[in-house]
Amino acid sequence: MPPLAPYGRQLPYSYALGLYPAMQALQHCPGKVTRVLTHSSLGTGEGAQALLSACERLRIRTEPADRLLKRLSGKDNCYAAAVFRKDPQTLQAGRNHLVLVNPMDAGNLGTMLRTALGFGYEDIALILPCADPYEPQVIRASMGAVFSLRVFEYPDFPAYQEHAGERAFFPFMLSDSAVPLSQAVLKRTNPHSLVFGNEGSGLPDSFASLGQPVRIEQSQRIDSLNLAVAAAIGMYSFQKC
Amino acid sequence: MPPLAPYGRQLPYSYALGLYPAMQALQHCPGKVTRVLTHSSLGTGEGAQALLSACERLRIRTEPADRLLKRLSGKDNCYAAAVFRKDPQTLQAGRNHLVLVNPMDAGNLGTMLRTALGFGYEDIALILPCADPYEPQVIRASMGAVFSLRVFEYPDFPAYQEHAGERAFFPFMLSDSAVPLSQAVLKRTNPHSLVFGNEGSGLPDSFASLGQPVRIEQSQRIDSLNLAVAAAIGMYSFQKC
Repeated sequence: MPPLAPYGRQLPYSYALGLYPAMQALQHCPGKVTRVLTHSSLGTGEGAQALLSACERLRIRTEPADRLLKRLSGKDNCYAAAVFRKDPQTLQAGRNHLVLVNPMDAGNLGTMLRTALGFGYEDIALILPCADPYEPQVIRASMGAVFSLRVFEYPDFPAYQEHAGERAFFPFMLSDSAVPLSQAVLKRTNPHSLVFGNEGSGLPDSFASLGQPVRIEQSQRIDSLNLAVAAAIGMYSFQKC
Repeated sequence: MPPLAPYGRQLPYSYALGLYPAMQALQHCPGKVTRVLTHSSLGTGEGAQALLSACERLRIRTEPADRLLKRLSGKDNCYAAAVFRKDPQTLQAGRNHLVLVNPMDAGNLGTMLRTALGFGYEDIALILPCADPYEPQVIRASMGAVFSLRVFEYPDFPAYQEHAGERAFFPFMLSDSAVPLSQAVLKRTNPHSLVFGNEGSGLPDSFASLGQPVRIEQSQRIDSLNLAVAAAIGMYSFQKC
């Protein structure tokens, strides 16, 4: 096998760094895991045993890699990692989607993926430019949710729209025509897409004509909500599981 | 004036690092700001001018401090900071409270403070041990909300309860007696406290007898929601502004 490189967006593989993220990869997408890196300090605790026996059962090669783990994680206490192939997953046209237009913060993106899985939005469209969903920090913040979702990156919104087909769009924005979230949910139809803009700038005005703009009722005392918070409130309200 | 030290929890003052956080401090608690540090690269842009004219109007001393700003922030591009006194603010007994039991993540805490201000929870009880609400990272993540809230740290929950007086408690937890959030909001009375546990461990079981336990409806496919996300959904649902 070729030597492994520190993660970069152009690579066809990525790393689930840490015992828990590595286990998540093995549980939810074993077919994509090409090998598991282990540290000499991994030990023989419950977690370590579960990881090693999963590798044995799935016939996935394990490989001692103390120095590589340190180089990949920048930490001394990263004791395991799963190496997995990045296979983009086509979104399902009949399902409800979460659409993130230019989300740039890796931690926020990971949190939104975790929340999306929790509220039944399993198809995630990312509009470029955006944070890399396969970056190890995103995978960690997603608590492995990225392995259970269909995530696809589109060059621009029209490319997504063409793929997504006929559906209702709910852009979250502070336009004049926006209705409060608690009213918007009454207009919910399926399939639909909840659309959120960038952390700093939100959605461009042009999105107001896409469908029914929605605003989350909030006090004048803050400029805006954190993006991951806004997306969570939107998804929860539209889709109580 | 005594020389300024890098931030530590034991200090009676803290720093709002950066132009926007410093402006927030000047706008929302000018009486607590003792001086403003400026960098020689601050420039003469709109933000810089607003900061300097606010200091002049409020008669707050400005001080060139390139090296100190770098030392405090660890960055080369931190061009301003407000130094402010940490005055704990007594919570108002008649108001609704957000109670965070042992929140340990600084970024999460800042995000929760920002969200709380957005949803009208302006009295925040923190139960020790917990992240420091005056740590510069928390102040930054709160987008200055910490300057508009009453935040008080209690040694334990009974100490808070004694201070808070007669009220309804809604502990968020996965106990058997927990009701779904959408039902719990129908039982809302004022004043009330929404209570959330630690990021990793949640609330101890004993909190179930405190009041009406609440669970946020979510799929079995995730272990839990991110704490800042859960608190946001709870506050939004209880208190649509």
